[in-house]
Amino acid sequence: MGFELTILGSSSATPIYDRHPTSQLLVFRDRHFLIDCGEGTQMQMLKYKIRYHRISHIFISHLHGDHYLGLIGLLSTYHLQGRSTDLHLFGQQDLMDIIEMHLRASQTVLRYNLIFHHIRHYAPEILFEDDEIYVRSIVLNHRIPCTGFVFGEKPRPRRLKVDKLQEHNIPFTQYTRIKAGDNFVDSEGNVISNLELTEDPQPSRSYAFCSDTLYNPELAEDIKGVDLLYHEATFLHEMQERAVATFHSTAKEAAMVAKDANAGKLVIGHFSARYKDIEPLLDEAKTVFDNTELAVEGEVFKID
Amino acid sequence: MGFELTILGSSSATPIYDRHPTSQLLVFRDRHFLIDCGEGTQMQMLKYKIRYHRISHIFISHLHGDHYLGLIGLLSTYHLQGRSTDLHLFGQQDLMDIIEMHLRASQTVLRYNLIFHHIRHYAPEILFEDDEIYVRSIVLNHRIPCTGFVFGEKPRPRRLKVDKLQEHNIPFTQYTRIKAGDNFVDSEGNVISNLELTEDPQPSRSYAFCSDTLYNPELAEDIKGVDLLYHEATFLHEMQERAVATFHSTAKEAAMVAKDANAGKLVIGHFSARYKDIEPLLDEAKTVFDNTELAVEGEVFKID
Repeated sequence: MGFELTILGSSSATPIYDRHPTSQLLVFRDRHFLIDCGEGTQMQMLKYKIRYHRISHIFISHLHGDHYLGLIGLLSTYHLQGRSTDLHLFGQQDLMDIIEMHLRASQTVLRYNLIFHHIRHYAPEILFEDDEIYVRSIVLNHRIPCTGFVFGEKPRPRRLKVDKLQEHNIPFTQYTRIKAGDNFVDSEGNVISNLELTEDPQPSRSYAFCSDTLYNPELAEDIKGVDLLYHEATFLHEMQERAVATFHSTAKEAAMVAKDANAGKLVIGHFSARYKDIEPLLDEAKTVFDNTELAVEGEVFKID
Repeated sequence: MGFELTILGSSSATPIYDRHPTSQLLVFRDRHFLIDCGEGTQMQMLKYKIRYHRISHIFISHLHGDHYLGLIGLLSTYHLQGRSTDLHLFGQQDLMDIIEMHLRASQTVLRYNLIFHHIRHYAPEILFEDDEIYVRSIVLNHRIPCTGFVFGEKPRPRRLKVDKLQEHNIPFTQYTRIKAGDNFVDSEGNVISNLELTEDPQPSRSYAFCSDTLYNPELAEDIKGVDLLYHEATFLHEMQERAVATFHSTAKEAAMVAKDANAGKLVIGHFSARYKDIEPLLDEAKTVFDNTELAVEGEVFKID
């Protein structure tokens, strides 16, 4: 069942070489999450034919312009196009003050509910959850308050062994309880173990978005076993000093996090404007963690 | 000598059909003026290979997002790319408050001087002038405070008739005064009229930018004889009611302003998202004012 990431922006601080500032769309079944929203995100969504009206939750990692300057325009487009469904926005407190100031200046009262959720950047927290997925924040180390996000599927129900259920004449009405792990007890008090009636569920899938951050080996612990990891890789490792000075990571460091976290796959992005050719960043990451790909705009990564 | 306009954005409220929100670059000799700065303007400037570091003055007509949401990103790019020259910004007072809030949130202190000039929207004023050009505001009638801008070349010096100057043995040192319109008086007190020594100068050229506005017949008086007129034409005239309700103009109305102003040429833009094909807007305008063109992005209009 669908769980996939679309890259909308892959550039760091400034747009260049037709690369755009950070933005990603994560679709989990019918849920559409937007992660960061750099300038031009709405144009990128038009270009890649994203059904952007389905986005219900927007997560902003931090308030450097390349991660949120497309947000005001998107909110305004929703307003002008008559959106009526609620929109949940997660970000640092200043973000809502900024939005309100823009709305005041244009004398706009949004036609839909914009529900703001203040992210506490100093400690991880569950930002959102429903019956199938949760989103939790990760504390990152950047020049200003910055968080990453883990999108984790909740444990899925056990899978029924239909032949066994039939063999024991178990009524349909009991299936939900058995899926949830209960044993079956018949009218005479005989117990049939759940283990006989079900198989283990499909493993839960997860995606971690690690936005701008200084390399932090402890991060791997926080995202252990993630299926897909996006980690910024602004520089080649030969520029590590510059990476440290600007609170960014190198391609090698991103791969070290992926390796230590035992991630399924790594996607690197947030490429510095100094790299017209980004292949060397990929090559460098692969020396440490082979299953790495570049965050090419328009590319879709399935989380299986 | 160079005086030309490049269209960077032609869409109204939202980007669509690869049309972007309003922005224009006006180059007068070595001066680079940016007029409005909708979201994505910096990407558009990259696309059309504009030397955007040469821009010294930015004029923002009003604070609807489609006219200024690209500004914060551009200011940030200048900062990141090490700009050191002054940048003059003209706009409504709230604009500077908004910029300061963004800069605070990202903990950024710009590396260059951003000099803000508050436009008084209720009365026309000279916003800028030097020895060759002036910029004055025009009061427009939109839902929120909004001004247009006239960029006018100052009267050029009279052109010397070199053969006449030589015939009268007039020393070089007098040429500047004669160009400025003085008669020549020789050592014996004989007066040679300036009209004998010079010809009329090239006429001064001008460009008027009429951003979002309700149709206003009196506007023509304000921009009489302008060489190039940009006037918004959001709708076809069959949508006039909608134009009035949203404080916009129709293509026919834009053309009526051009005709009444006796403009040299009209460029229409700010096209509604309802028009994928914008040719009908051009056709409608031409029925009133033949020398009309569409504000196609990337197009350059010379002001001669």
